[in-house]
Amino acid sequence: MTTRREAGARLLAATAMAFAPLVVRSSERGALALPAPPIEDHTSLAAALKMRRSTRDYAQREIPDAVLSGLLWAAYGVNRPSGERTAPYWRHVMVLDIYVARADGVWLYEPKTHALLPHLPEDIRGATGRQDFVTRAPVNLVYVAHGERMMDVSAEERRLYASVDTGFVGQNVYLYCAAAGLATVFRASIDYPLLERAMKLPDTQFVTFAQTVGYPAASAGGAG
Amino acid sequence: MTTRREAGARLLAATAMAFAPLVVRSSERGALALPAPPIEDHTSLAAALKMRRSTRDYAQREIPDAVLSGLLWAAYGVNRPSGERTAPYWRHVMVLDIYVARADGVWLYEPKTHALLPHLPEDIRGATGRQDFVTRAPVNLVYVAHGERMMDVSAEERRLYASVDTGFVGQNVYLYCAAAGLATVFRASIDYPLLERAMKLPDTQFVTFAQTVGYPAASAGGAG
Repeated sequence: MTTRREAGARLLAATAMAFAPLVVRSSERGALALPAPPIEDHTSLAAALKMRRSTRDYAQREIPDAVLSGLLWAAYGVNRPSGERTAPYWRHVMVLDIYVARADGVWLYEPKTHALLPHLPEDIRGATGRQDFVTRAPVNLVYVAHGERMMDVSAEERRLYASVDTGFVGQNVYLYCAAAGLATVFRASIDYPLLERAMKLPDTQFVTFAQTVGYPAASAGGAG
Repeated sequence: MTTRREAGARLLAATAMAFAPLVVRSSERGALALPAPPIEDHTSLAAALKMRRSTRDYAQREIPDAVLSGLLWAAYGVNRPSGERTAPYWRHVMVLDIYVARADGVWLYEPKTHALLPHLPEDIRGATGRQDFVTRAPVNLVYVAHGERMMDVSAEERRLYASVDTGFVGQNVYLYCAAAGLATVFRASIDYPLLERAMKLPDTQFVTFAQTVGYPAASAGGAG
């Protein structure tokens, strides 16, 4: 146990150093530099698994940048010098992008520099799902697949492969939210053509799923 | 932080009490009762995310029951009195079973009693994938979907839904393995008809994916 925890602590310390310069470098041309992920958070994996749940009632409360930073790193951040990620990807091809739809527009998460790149200035949260809470919650993650990177397989397989990759990422988001006191739900209740138009995606890209993230409404109760 | 950690500790203590009687109750008719999950393990979620990786080189070393117990609970265990799980499932329908293929046969994980039920006495590890390491590794998880619980949607959608649900579970396995010093890889390189025959599955059920779990070979190096 101790050895493992020590190893973890060393790795996390290395991460902190690796992120510091990257955050500075990315503050250019409208990119939103994210603070280093909150790696000092020692909520255990077991506690996060225990508290994992889906929530559909959200408070109208913003998510601080430091929390969003941890969320996106947990979801699909770079976790090794090789550039590989916190979630695996099928057939060694990275096909997924994570977009963050907030009141101040749509942002693309760039894992390499751990920054948010501006994509659209509009608030399109209402277009990210069929349920009312998507407009109320501060963040809707929209998972987008690059179909053009999978042209050797059928359209059905492209959807399947990209969807499974999204499942890995979505579970990371669930666990981070459980650890950080955030509420979340992974969703397929989406008007896909509407959302893809609102996102102004090229024809080769498609939405796999969306995932709402926010703070639980008082009515949503505790972690039970 | 403190509040969250305290809440986590309370929940974990409650889990320990909830599991104790269940383990005793399940020791009947050949079922293999699993020890309570190792909930005292406080590897942080962040450390597990940092160490997550795929490994294809395994040592010939067994996985102790206590570790397998934690693995299966993390994967898809009951995490609330409502019976819900550590991973979400699409459309509120539970369609997935986890089978454990080991040298001593194939076992079905029963989350409600946290026990392994005997399924087949044969060692079918070699049939769980096309890669050589599947025979060498002590455990191959085989994810099986109940198609008959999704008859309102097309065969293509049944495969998609069950595959995404497997992705959630597979990521839990990745993170538990990272925390427990285990090696794992989620795989689709499977002769599906061969494996489904070897598993003696009814026609209504199908394999989505498999995931090898074991200890890393010395040649697999560290967590890098």
